Amino acid sequence: MTDQNPVFIPGPTNMPDRLRRAIQVQTQDHRAPDFVNTFAPVLEGTKKVFGTTEGKVVTFPASGTGGWEAAVCNTLSPGDKVLVGRYGVFSHRWIDLCQRHGLDVQIVDCAWGEGAPAARFEEILSADKGHQIRAVLTTHNETATGVRSDIAAVRRAMDAASHPAMLFVDCVSSLASMPFEFDGWGVDIAVSGSQKGFMLPTGMAILGVSPKAIAAMETARLPRTFFDFRDMMKANATGAFPYTPPLQLIYGLRESLDMLFEEGLENVYARHHRLAEGVRRAVDAWGLKLVAKSPDLYSDTVSAIYVPEGFDSNALTDHAYRAYKVSFGIGLGQMNGKAFRIGHLGSLTDVMVLSGLATVEMAMADLNYPITLGSGVAAAQDYFRHSNALALKSAA
Amino acid sequence: MTDQNPVFIPGPTNMPDRLRRAIQVQTQDHRAPDFVNTFAPVLEGTKKVFGTTEGKVVTFPASGTGGWEAAVCNTLSPGDKVLVGRYGVFSHRWIDLCQRHGLDVQIVDCAWGEGAPAARFEEILSADKGHQIRAVLTTHNETATGVRSDIAAVRRAMDAASHPAMLFVDCVSSLASMPFEFDGWGVDIAVSGSQKGFMLPTGMAILGVSPKAIAAMETARLPRTFFDFRDMMKANATGAFPYTPPLQLIYGLRESLDMLFEEGLENVYARHHRLAEGVRRAVDAWGLKLVAKSPDLYSDTVSAIYVPEGFDSNALTDHAYRAYKVSFGIGLGQMNGKAFRIGHLGSLTDVMVLSGLATVEMAMADLNYPITLGSGVAAAQDYFRHSNALALKSAA
Amino acid sequence: MTDQNPVFIPGPTNMPDRLRRAIQVQTQDHRAPDFVNTFAPVLEGTKKVFGTTEGKVVTFPASGTGGWEAAVCNTLSPGDKVLVGRYGVFSHRWIDLCQRHGLDVQIVDCAWGEGAPAARFEEILSADKGHQIRAVLTTHNETATGVRSDIAAVRRAMDAASHPAMLFVDCVSSLASMPFEFDGWGVDIAVSGSQKGFMLPTGMAILGVSPKAIAAMETARLPRTFFDFRDMMKANATGAFPYTPPLQLIYGLRESLDMLFEEGLENVYARHHRLAEGVRRAVDAWGLKLVAKSPDLYSDTVSAIYVPEGFDSNALTDHAYRAYKVSFGIGLGQMNGKAFRIGHLGSLTDVMVLSGLATVEMAMADLNYPITLGSGVAAAQDYFRHSNALALKSAA
Amino acid sequence: MTDQNPVFIPGPTNMPDRLRRAIQVQTQDHRAPDFVNTFAPVLEGTKKVFGTTEGKVVTFPASGTGGWEAAVCNTLSPGDKVLVGRYGVFSHRWIDLCQRHGLDVQIVDCAWGEGAPAARFEEILSADKGHQIRAVLTTHNETATGVRSDIAAVRRAMDAASHPAMLFVDCVSSLASMPFEFDGWGVDIAVSGSQKGFMLPTGMAILGVSPKAIAAMETARLPRTFFDFRDMMKANATGAFPYTPPLQLIYGLRESLDMLFEEGLENVYARHHRLAEGVRRAVDAWGLKLVAKSPDLYSDTVSAIYVPEGFDSNALTDHAYRAYKVSFGIGLGQMNGKAFRIGHLGSLTDVMVLSGLATVEMAMADLNYPITLGSGVAAAQDYFRHSNALALKSAA
Repeated sequence: MTDQNPVFIPGPTNMPDRLRRAIQVQTQDHRAPDFVNTFAPVLEGTKKVFGTTEGKVVTFPASGTGGWEAAVCNTLSPGDKVLVGRYGVFSHRWIDLCQRHGLDVQIVDCAWGEGAPAARFEEILSADKGHQIRAVLTTHNETATGVRSDIAAVRRAMDAASHPAMLFVDCVSSLASMPFEFDGWGVDIAVSGSQKGFMLPTGMAILGVSPKAIAAMETARLPRTFFDFRDMMKANATGAFPYTPPLQLIYGLRESLDMLFEEGLENVYARHHRLAEGVRRAVDAWGLKLVAKSPDLYSDTVSAIYVPEGFDSNALTDHAYRAYKVSFGIGLGQMNGKAFRIGHLGSLTDVMVLSGLATVEMAMADLNYPITLGSGVAAAQDYFRHSNALALKSAA
Repeated sequence: MTDQNPVFIPGPTNMPDRLRRAIQVQTQDHRAPDFVNTFAPVLEGTKKVFGTTEGKVVTFPASGTGGWEAAVCNTLSPGDKVLVGRYGVFSHRWIDLCQRHGLDVQIVDCAWGEGAPAARFEEILSADKGHQIRAVLTTHNETATGVRSDIAAVRRAMDAASHPAMLFVDCVSSLASMPFEFDGWGVDIAVSGSQKGFMLPTGMAILGVSPKAIAAMETARLPRTFFDFRDMMKANATGAFPYTPPLQLIYGLRESLDMLFEEGLENVYARHHRLAEGVRRAVDAWGLKLVAKSPDLYSDTVSAIYVPEGFDSNALTDHAYRAYKVSFGIGLGQMNGKAFRIGHLGSLTDVMVLSGLATVEMAMADLNYPITLGSGVAAAQDYFRHSNALALKSAA
Repeated sequence: MTDQNPVFIPGPTNMPDRLRRAIQVQTQDHRAPDFVNTFAPVLEGTKKVFGTTEGKVVTFPASGTGGWEAAVCNTLSPGDKVLVGRYGVFSHRWIDLCQRHGLDVQIVDCAWGEGAPAARFEEILSADKGHQIRAVLTTHNETATGVRSDIAAVRRAMDAASHPAMLFVDCVSSLASMPFEFDGWGVDIAVSGSQKGFMLPTGMAILGVSPKAIAAMETARLPRTFFDFRDMMKANATGAFPYTPPLQLIYGLRESLDMLFEEGLENVYARHHRLAEGVRRAVDAWGLKLVAKSPDLYSDTVSAIYVPEGFDSNALTDHAYRAYKVSFGIGLGQMNGKAFRIGHLGSLTDVMVLSGLATVEMAMADLNYPITLGSGVAAAQDYFRHSNALALKSAA
Repeated sequence: MTDQNPVFIPGPTNMPDRLRRAIQVQTQDHRAPDFVNTFAPVLEGTKKVFGTTEGKVVTFPASGTGGWEAAVCNTLSPGDKVLVGRYGVFSHRWIDLCQRHGLDVQIVDCAWGEGAPAARFEEILSADKGHQIRAVLTTHNETATGVRSDIAAVRRAMDAASHPAMLFVDCVSSLASMPFEFDGWGVDIAVSGSQKGFMLPTGMAILGVSPKAIAAMETARLPRTFFDFRDMMKANATGAFPYTPPLQLIYGLRESLDMLFEEGLENVYARHHRLAEGVRRAVDAWGLKLVAKSPDLYSDTVSAIYVPEGFDSNALTDHAYRAYKVSFGIGLGQMNGKAFRIGHLGSLTDVMVLSGLATVEMAMADLNYPITLGSGVAAAQDYFRHSNALALKSAA
């Protein structure tokens, strides 16, 4: 009787019924002449979510990790230098991937809880007179710390240094939940996936690729076949796929785009902000602190929350799952044991968020945290009430 | 993005994923020779939920209202006298049905919030020396008032009067959620449906029928065809149906029974009691009162709650729906405008209940109820924590 | 591995994926203020399928048998006289229902394989100077014999006799598959269901009701509650239901109507005619005979086919199911053992029909029928090829 | 009304209802402590399908092409030599992948329609005294030509040459449909996917890996991250995944294994053989020829069929799709325009196959092929009847 509880992990996200229906597709022939009618609009629609008119969208039957690999392999060659900030598990993993692929990775280590180090980037890029650095890699939303970086600032740093490096952005846990401006920020490759803001099952890596990155793929020498942009773009041009496509997820993405556009992307972002702010009010009411160091860094899709000294965050998430059958994100990497995470993205409502907060409170009380039951819930309720346009209108 | 919120109406109930999968059945031939292998165990299993070994179970593609009609038409004749207590909308409707079918209905009116009037029944039955009263009709769980009647007491009253009338019980919103003892209480017909404790879509009336009621159907002269027990029992005996059966719901009921038996009926009842008690703690914390007049009458599947003087309960449920997209039960009949209802039955968890309580609080606050946000939630959290075996064990 | 075979019973029909998705609806509140937005257009759309602008549509959570009972109970009183033709199991069952409800049923027995006896009706109605006959009951498509009756002729007979009786038509297995003209034929009540031409699960009786029948319900004295038109029409007027509605089927009917209107009702009828004609070509190639006595009576939704002398049709359908896991309709009533039936209605294609015909051939050969494998298939293929607009165009 | 037709492409295959239900899983936390209870048995069960007790199974959210890449990247280093036979599009693509990854590929070109060149392999391996060849790559079932190679013979050739090279086998379109003996044939890596014999949607690459291949991954220097066996095996050991797993497909694979084991792998293979043989009888009756050059090479999952001289196979498959909405496989590579393919694998019945054959006949007739309608169907019917144990038993 417990499979009805929402999950509060930072993805995969709770699937709305409408998308669950949409992916209920019996097998069809992906080589049928009319498949293009289904597929082509999906790629076009996804461009709007990235915020690009000049770039292209490619998808692969893979997870976001596969998307990173695609980004790197299609544009770089062994020994190429890349500049990366490390401020959480996911930025670290991307570094690891680059190193395994034989790239020369210049790492800028930052404190966890901080975002992309634009100023340091500017210094390093300015010093790179020979333009050895081929790409700057950033994680828009660091899921491990609940930090959203300022990608526009990274672009400004690159421009200030007049550096021609490409800009790669991991937006797995931000796209379709927080504003993203592929063209506006001068992004060259943005990597996302189906299972976060798109509210679908895991299984599709979704990338935006700029003309500059497309040009780079002609000379890149890292080996790739499954993730080869060239094969994919060539096949996509006629509505085809170079191998068997994940049909159900293509139908799902079509419906997901319809949902996002019907709600309006600005409203989607506003909803995520409201829900996140409600969570933050609760955290504050509990007397706890976010891992993110300052409000400008707060993520609207996931909050990483320090447990008090002397408590083990793993015990908390474990207990919440065992006692109440609710899943929260564990603390990852340096945060393991120190922080837990509440995912608040995708198909989510005020009401669902309140149930998650109420669960956290019970679990904390069970484990003797100095917490007042209902305190965080009340803070969030108060915020939700006063920021809910429907509530204000209905009660007027 | 709002179709993810649970409903808190007293049925149809939230469907668990497992049952949603189970009813996903492509068309099959209900006249196939092996259909009996599917159908017969379902009827047998349902007997356990009724608590009968001597009775039979019949089902119809209909709602609970159809089940009432089946009960009456199959056992009574025009002009027959029946004795009924009226203490809510649903007991009233059953009376209305009897009257429309030309029965002579002796009504015992009770205050809403009270249960079946066993003492009055005993007096009336004792006075009925000629045994004109053919059946006593009771509503086990009056969904309009959140009152559970003591059916055993009704049986004792009938026995005390040494009266041979049949005992009919509406258990639409109690079966598979609260203890029911068909044989133990000497019930002759019990009427339920698929969309409450069985957690399925609406569409199947489910009845338990005693040998005495079966005997009565041989002489009953009220007209019936669609609801004829004789046709149904005869066809069922070979695994067949007298007309097209609701195949998907039969598969659904099979899986529902599996779920109930895996959890254990006693545990199902205990879970409903816990959830209901959590709601009652919240009501108490809000300073509000239940319609049910005393604790022994409290229903574990639905709570009807008076709003304070000067407030309109319809405005509350309407606002909760418009502002937060959460459905609660409106006040029915005499309670319209005066009380709202929280359904807490079927596939439901502590966590889901808390989200409902949090919503009620926001809606009340929006409408200027003298309510403290988080107060009811906290009371329920406190109760849930201390009554949740998993929580106690996990935190130990 | 056998649940992929289509069924060839005359309903419930194979469900298309689109409808399977449409009915995957999590529980919603049927009393929510916006439910009317879903429900009202469904009732309006269904009127188009009946072919009525003046009549109303009512639905019940029941099977077609329930729909018959609703028709009779809402318009007639005990002892009322009705005129009915009996030419198959389903027309017989309707008679049985009338008799059980205490009506005075004048039966015109016809040979099975014939249709509604319009000429005899005219004689009888003309002789009924006192207009004792309150209703004429006909089965548009007698599913047991594969006979479609000429309802327009029945109406002409009634008009020729200047008789004011109501005209009730069972169109359970014809509506949404063969042309139906509620207004044009002067029908007063037409009874159908969700599981045939609407391609949905069993569980919803769907009726068209004329103003004359609506007027009759005010004086009709047969008891009814569950099936009471008055309660239903009153509630429907505000988008409500007098009891819990079958929500999933309402959503399903909405999508079914969309599918029917997108294909175009005329095209739906033409498709059924083509598929039926293909089956008839196969029957002819096999050297077998239809139960329907002449081409003007041939049903486009089901064919009842005599097996040769000395063979048992039950053995054939039983063998087809056991050996090939394909369900055909058994011979019903007088036809039991003598004829089997192929249902060809609902969501069906040329290709699916050919698989059914191929199965019949194998089963017949297994049982030593004098049949040439492939003969019926070839006859149907030939017909399908030359009547398939897409094929002709594509091959041009 | 056409989405009900089966597909006859050689994968993705028609999904049975049971698996469609199984993958309808709402989001769950893949990091939950009990996820291992779901995942570990799936990996164990899949080993049985591969026929290995010593090897391990790894899965990736990817297509079969990704599986190839995983095999190569995890065991080989740039410049390593591999020996490959090329006898169709899929063996060619694997070669292309090796070349893109910088391997030294020794290609043995064979006529299309032939299988793996075991004798040539033996000569080449015997001549490779320095054991430069690190791996032999073979395609068990060449989907483009409908040829099943004799992997045991390849193993014998390797043994005869006493060569230590690893043996990699593409069994994407054969596993779970035709016998596969991972241990018996000394396979080191076998690559398959979810969308063929496992009857699931596309999206999971499924590999068997021998201890020898596992050892090789420690020294292999081809870059990989997403497809890294080491990360995957390490995480899998505790029931985890190194990144977000495709949850729905894991549940689907669990149910698929249950279905395969309930039917019995030997029965699954026998069923595929019967269905394939029925298709071959039809091809013969049509007077057409298979691409596969001899019966020992005939695939039981796909038949590639030459169209007569002067006809264009693309026009045939295109017409079948446009006119009858049935998908067959087009001729790939050298076979484009010359041959079409009938996929006959996965969840398929005699009855479904007959519908495909009937469609081919109509399409051929439409395009003026010298074909007799019903001829292929009759040949297949005759074969199916006499090889169907259920039919023989039922008719006895």
